[in-house]
Amino acid sequence: MDQAMDQTMDQILLYDTTLRDGTQGENISFTVEDKLRISQRLDDIGIHFIEGGWPGSNPRDLQFFKLAKKTKFKNAELTAFSATRKPGISAKKDDNLKALLESETGVVTIFGKTWDLHVKEVMNNSLEENIAMIHDSVFWLKENGRKVIYDAEHFFDGYFADRQYALKTLTTAFEGGADTLVLCDTNGGTLPFDIERITQDVMKTLNEKFDKHSVKIGIHTHNDCGLALANSISAVREGAVMVQGTINGYGERCGNADLTSIIPVLKLKMKYDCISDENLKKLRKLSRFVSERANMTPSNTRPFVGRSAFAHKGGIHVSAIAKTPLAYEHICPEMVGNKQRVLVSDLSGKSNVEYKAKELGIDLTSDEFNTQEIVTEVKRLEQEGYQFDAADGSLHILIEKFTNQFSPSFELKSFRVTVEKNADRPCHSHAMIKISVDGKDEITAAEGHGPVSALDNALRKALTSFYPSLDLMHLVDFKVRVIDGRDGTSAKVRVLIESRDEDKIWSTVGVSEDIIDASWQALTDSFHFKISNE
Amino acid sequence: MDQAMDQTMDQILLYDTTLRDGTQGENISFTVEDKLRISQRLDDIGIHFIEGGWPGSNPRDLQFFKLAKKTKFKNAELTAFSATRKPGISAKKDDNLKALLESETGVVTIFGKTWDLHVKEVMNNSLEENIAMIHDSVFWLKENGRKVIYDAEHFFDGYFADRQYALKTLTTAFEGGADTLVLCDTNGGTLPFDIERITQDVMKTLNEKFDKHSVKIGIHTHNDCGLALANSISAVREGAVMVQGTINGYGERCGNADLTSIIPVLKLKMKYDCISDENLKKLRKLSRFVSERANMTPSNTRPFVGRSAFAHKGGIHVSAIAKTPLAYEHICPEMVGNKQRVLVSDLSGKSNVEYKAKELGIDLTSDEFNTQEIVTEVKRLEQEGYQFDAADGSLHILIEKFTNQFSPSFELKSFRVTVEKNADRPCHSHAMIKISVDGKDEITAAEGHGPVSALDNALRKALTSFYPSLDLMHLVDFKVRVIDGRDGTSAKVRVLIESRDEDKIWSTVGVSEDIIDASWQALTDSFHFKISNE
Repeated sequence: MDQAMDQTMDQILLYDTTLRDGTQGENISFTVEDKLRISQRLDDIGIHFIEGGWPGSNPRDLQFFKLAKKTKFKNAELTAFSATRKPGISAKKDDNLKALLESETGVVTIFGKTWDLHVKEVMNNSLEENIAMIHDSVFWLKENGRKVIYDAEHFFDGYFADRQYALKTLTTAFEGGADTLVLCDTNGGTLPFDIERITQDVMKTLNEKFDKHSVKIGIHTHNDCGLALANSISAVREGAVMVQGTINGYGERCGNADLTSIIPVLKLKMKYDCISDENLKKLRKLSRFVSERANMTPSNTRPFVGRSAFAHKGGIHVSAIAKTPLAYEHICPEMVGNKQRVLVSDLSGKSNVEYKAKELGIDLTSDEFNTQEIVTEVKRLEQEGYQFDAADGSLHILIEKFTNQFSPSFELKSFRVTVEKNADRPCHSHAMIKISVDGKDEITAAEGHGPVSALDNALRKALTSFYPSLDLMHLVDFKVRVIDGRDGTSAKVRVLIESRDEDKIWSTVGVSEDIIDASWQALTDSFHFKISNE
Repeated sequence: MDQAMDQTMDQILLYDTTLRDGTQGENISFTVEDKLRISQRLDDIGIHFIEGGWPGSNPRDLQFFKLAKKTKFKNAELTAFSATRKPGISAKKDDNLKALLESETGVVTIFGKTWDLHVKEVMNNSLEENIAMIHDSVFWLKENGRKVIYDAEHFFDGYFADRQYALKTLTTAFEGGADTLVLCDTNGGTLPFDIERITQDVMKTLNEKFDKHSVKIGIHTHNDCGLALANSISAVREGAVMVQGTINGYGERCGNADLTSIIPVLKLKMKYDCISDENLKKLRKLSRFVSERANMTPSNTRPFVGRSAFAHKGGIHVSAIAKTPLAYEHICPEMVGNKQRVLVSDLSGKSNVEYKAKELGIDLTSDEFNTQEIVTEVKRLEQEGYQFDAADGSLHILIEKFTNQFSPSFELKSFRVTVEKNADRPCHSHAMIKISVDGKDEITAAEGHGPVSALDNALRKALTSFYPSLDLMHLVDFKVRVIDGRDGTSAKVRVLIESRDEDKIWSTVGVSEDIIDASWQALTDSFHFKISNE
């Protein structure tokens, strides 16, 4: 299906605003640490611009830019975001623009008003002063040595209301020195045909007025009609060279254009140059990483990167793809780091387990083991809420148990965890634990920040006398997800723990109605895994 | 924004395949009762064709058609689905076509192969026999008095591979008597520009060969590139008069074109006639009804009908929509049965808090209260990990505290929660709590599924003697998120609790390094909220 092969390999610049516009989405919120880690992953996959936040609007973004100065990016340029100056003051005296310069990014993005309705009714401003605000702000930032990306807010609504004025805001920003002019469909209400027609008009107008090669146009769309992606690629077809979007399409209301679709559509379908083949393979993992940091359930049906994106259920489809995957797959899933799945098939389950066992270095070739039995058990446990694709440590132990290769490194006799609180003082947690190693008992106690931490500390203390190497092992991540929220505080929870030592990282899982019980399962799997892999 | 006003009010026929293609989606499955109830709702909103299933493929669909015969539809025509006859036999002897006739629907839909790859490699068939299968099947169904909709499977892939052959399958179906020819992008890999160009070519070819007014074209798209909607409307612009889709876009892999977007885009944006204004207002409820029957969590960000579709978080946005909703809303939410919402978070300004206070029934107009102080406190707490856009109950209490309108309904003296485990037996949790209401102490104890549940039960037991209405209150959701996972089990966690009584639903939040402490904060806010809103 090379219908777009005749296109040239023009380069499109990818501009990510997950860390700013993405956080406008309901329930989306990132800590400074989240932001730093996400920006590193965005850099790693080859995004060209990473908008880090709006330093003038909140302390978290301010702190992010302070810490980000110390971060080295391989590919990306970090940008700070703000508005044009306030009416009636000079750009120099504007606090927002000041904060923008203080974030010390080489590139800055400012948005200005295009739509007369906004200028007059929302801002109580005059059309002339708005033009002056755009010019002064861009000019001041250029004077201070910044590359400037100008976001024309509500560009398309503004164009419908007053074409001349909308175009004038653009030419003003360009004359002020802006390097890129971004047409924003802020309310997400515009159709692809109109985006196409208007972008054409913009390109023609600017090219007639200015030097054709110096005008760069970008596109920023929202998904209120379900058309953010179609609108983005419509603008690209008409000459836009920058696309703004967010990972997983997070953003206000129905979200922004989703870079996890934009990238493969531009690259694989339209044959534009945007990221390398190698980096494209990291797309699914990037999508999962960002959803984990945002603590949002990943959408199974997300194009290209979703768990179901290449999952086949219909009988006809399954037998057809067995002959040729092309029959019901529009691209090869591995190109975006995804894979084909066949639903309701025990055969595929068996080969999965064999594949996984090999990967974990467990021998399943001997006749005495029944792979089917393990498949059945994995399916039963996943039905109950366990998730082994995210817990290789626990899967390892499960396979070892089924193949009689597991010998427990310790046994629990009992534990007791207590949390106490008096009036307004903070909670206090402590744990007592009794374990046995090779018939030798050990009883000990410890405190912690919360009950799981106390239990972790007590277990570690009890085991270290037997296994000194545990000193090198650390728990690095701890995730809790309520599997079925409908029963309130009696709901079943899944705990995922990530551990590491000097050499490796492993994950373990526990499921129970009791969070302490679930944590205990994941904790013990993690310690068993470490000890048995010495 | 009447950019499409110049379009005529042509009628577009809506064809729903939620009950057939929708069930190919991962985790989607309907009982016969589900199917009957959904088809009634589809009829009620004014869908023109309801594809009920594939009677030849499974007993459930067979039974559905048996029961559906007794159902009277106001607007819709029920259709049964099947494939063209098998190779080498007559249409009369084909079991699938027999089952199709036996379902006794006035309209039937059959799909046939367009793509030479499928005909040859998947079906091991000859191109000539495939053409004969299409002709015979359509002809036989017409002979039996049915209206026939012909779905040209993989039409666009087939067209790219062999334009002449693809067009020939269409003209064959038309000559056999098909009433509508539907172009299917079965693998979801085609771009809108190609859909447009190819639909144009199809219309031209058919109009030249046959009477212009008798050829009806439809479109059926999948969302593998995130372009199902854009592709549907591209075909409509080129003359397609039928659009096939599913409610909520359920369907194989990334799903089908989503009728909950198609309908408002066609009607509100492109000004086509498809359903009435009155029926359009039922759209959000229909979307929720189908997700309930499918037991799928509704997507908050679904265009038009999602909970967040008209939710505003950014401070600038909120102050603007207070002046004119048009500022950040592309349509009036009530037109699709949805509504505007304002979220409060550290991105938001004074206007969000004022709007929210009004909504919560708290008076902020008095001069003695400093709204800015509340905003600063909200921002500080969100910096620590609280998340108020998802916790209106806690925000309510916070605003009450700042305006001296909060009087605690109880005070904690102390609690102690204990979790015990012996060897392999399950964990056992119990809680002791001492509270005071109006100077009167109460001490009590309770067990639970896990420590939070035990604490919830103990607090409820202690309070019910003072506040009997607590009997009607239930915790319905419990979410835990580790805010910063790097510290392992000492990480800070955020707990969100959703509670409901007979009238309302509210959410509360707590943050701490100790999960019990965080849960306690969210629990007490929830109980305070309930009691103070009696």
